[in-house]
Amino acid sequence: MTDSGTAATAGTPAIRSGRRPGRQDTRQQILDSAREAFAGNGFAKASIRRIAAMAGVDPALVHHYFGSKDDLFLATVEVSINPRTVVEQLIDGGADGLGTRMIDAILQVWESPAGASLVAAVRTAVGDPGSATTLGRFVTIEIVARLLGSMHYPPAEAERRSALIVSQVLGVVIGRYVLRVGALATMEHADLVASVGPNLQHYLTGELPARIA
Amino acid sequence: MTDSGTAATAGTPAIRSGRRPGRQDTRQQILDSAREAFAGNGFAKASIRRIAAMAGVDPALVHHYFGSKDDLFLATVEVSINPRTVVEQLIDGGADGLGTRMIDAILQVWESPAGASLVAAVRTAVGDPGSATTLGRFVTIEIVARLLGSMHYPPAEAERRSALIVSQVLGVVIGRYVLRVGALATMEHADLVASVGPNLQHYLTGELPARIA
Repeated sequence: MTDSGTAATAGTPAIRSGRRPGRQDTRQQILDSAREAFAGNGFAKASIRRIAAMAGVDPALVHHYFGSKDDLFLATVEVSINPRTVVEQLIDGGADGLGTRMIDAILQVWESPAGASLVAAVRTAVGDPGSATTLGRFVTIEIVARLLGSMHYPPAEAERRSALIVSQVLGVVIGRYVLRVGALATMEHADLVASVGPNLQHYLTGELPARIA
Repeated sequence: MTDSGTAATAGTPAIRSGRRPGRQDTRQQILDSAREAFAGNGFAKASIRRIAAMAGVDPALVHHYFGSKDDLFLATVEVSINPRTVVEQLIDGGADGLGTRMIDAILQVWESPAGASLVAAVRTAVGDPGSATTLGRFVTIEIVARLLGSMHYPPAEAERRSALIVSQVLGVVIGRYVLRVGALATMEHADLVASVGPNLQHYLTGELPARIA
């Protein structure tokens, strides 16, 4: 991205007939700046205004393309992984070993360029429960909800299994990537996947105790 | 763990004529104030000075009885639960159903008066990794380390199992008590214990895949 290119896209997107900064480039520029801002300053401190300045565009353009800051954040995560595609791939693989493939996919998201943004968002959500809705829309949980949706459990059972899966996934990602708890942070990816996978499988398709509630 | 003070005040409190607030009372007063401060202002903002003021004692006395703020925090948790006693009870119950009894004991701590302090400490630790050492000394993890210590695994194996157990326990307590994620927050205690217990048992005594690392 050159200065002239970003400046040109500031006011009127994609109208220029020249070869360079098409719509796609501006969007990408905003996404790159957003990811950098979320990871560097934390989710709470990163403002649309600052992200727009970093990308060399007008803040209105950021809103135009991405809507709210929450939406922009989710977009930075989705460029690394499309939850719908992931879920489709997981389901296509069949029920066998689904838990293992699932935790593998989730760890890959956290180890992708989006990981730093996710850590920033978790910090915000844990510090300020009001913002936890953003966390609630995290890829993790989106993936869980969609996966369970495909399994046709009665709603209450799907909800219980979803809660249990989230409990295991949350613990792994927060312990490993946010708190960096000793052995959890240093364990090999493959080792962690192989160990946690069967427990997730149990929550996904295994027999759970009769509901006590 | 700071046992010296606890041991000194255990048993029948000796009433020393002439001194007004007996040792026991002063200690208790400080603990009550500390718990209130940690839960209300968050772990980071609660200062020894303020806690001393709330308890109507000199800050030096707080340091004298409890040492650092970290130690004081752990003491507020320990009044609700003595990790050593808990671990002994868990071990005495035998290996059968240990995972279930363990998650039950941990949830009880979080549902005790110490729970609000724990939430405050988690918020601090997640927001500021530098303070995560306090979290690392949490009852949860202390219990895990002591329990696994009693099982005589080779060190590397104990470390791996400990990491896996922590991942499941962290996810339950952060999801349920800190982030208050939907179904995880509302699930009945007994239902959660019955569902998570077998997975913890698997991490404690089950067969894990050969180490890939």
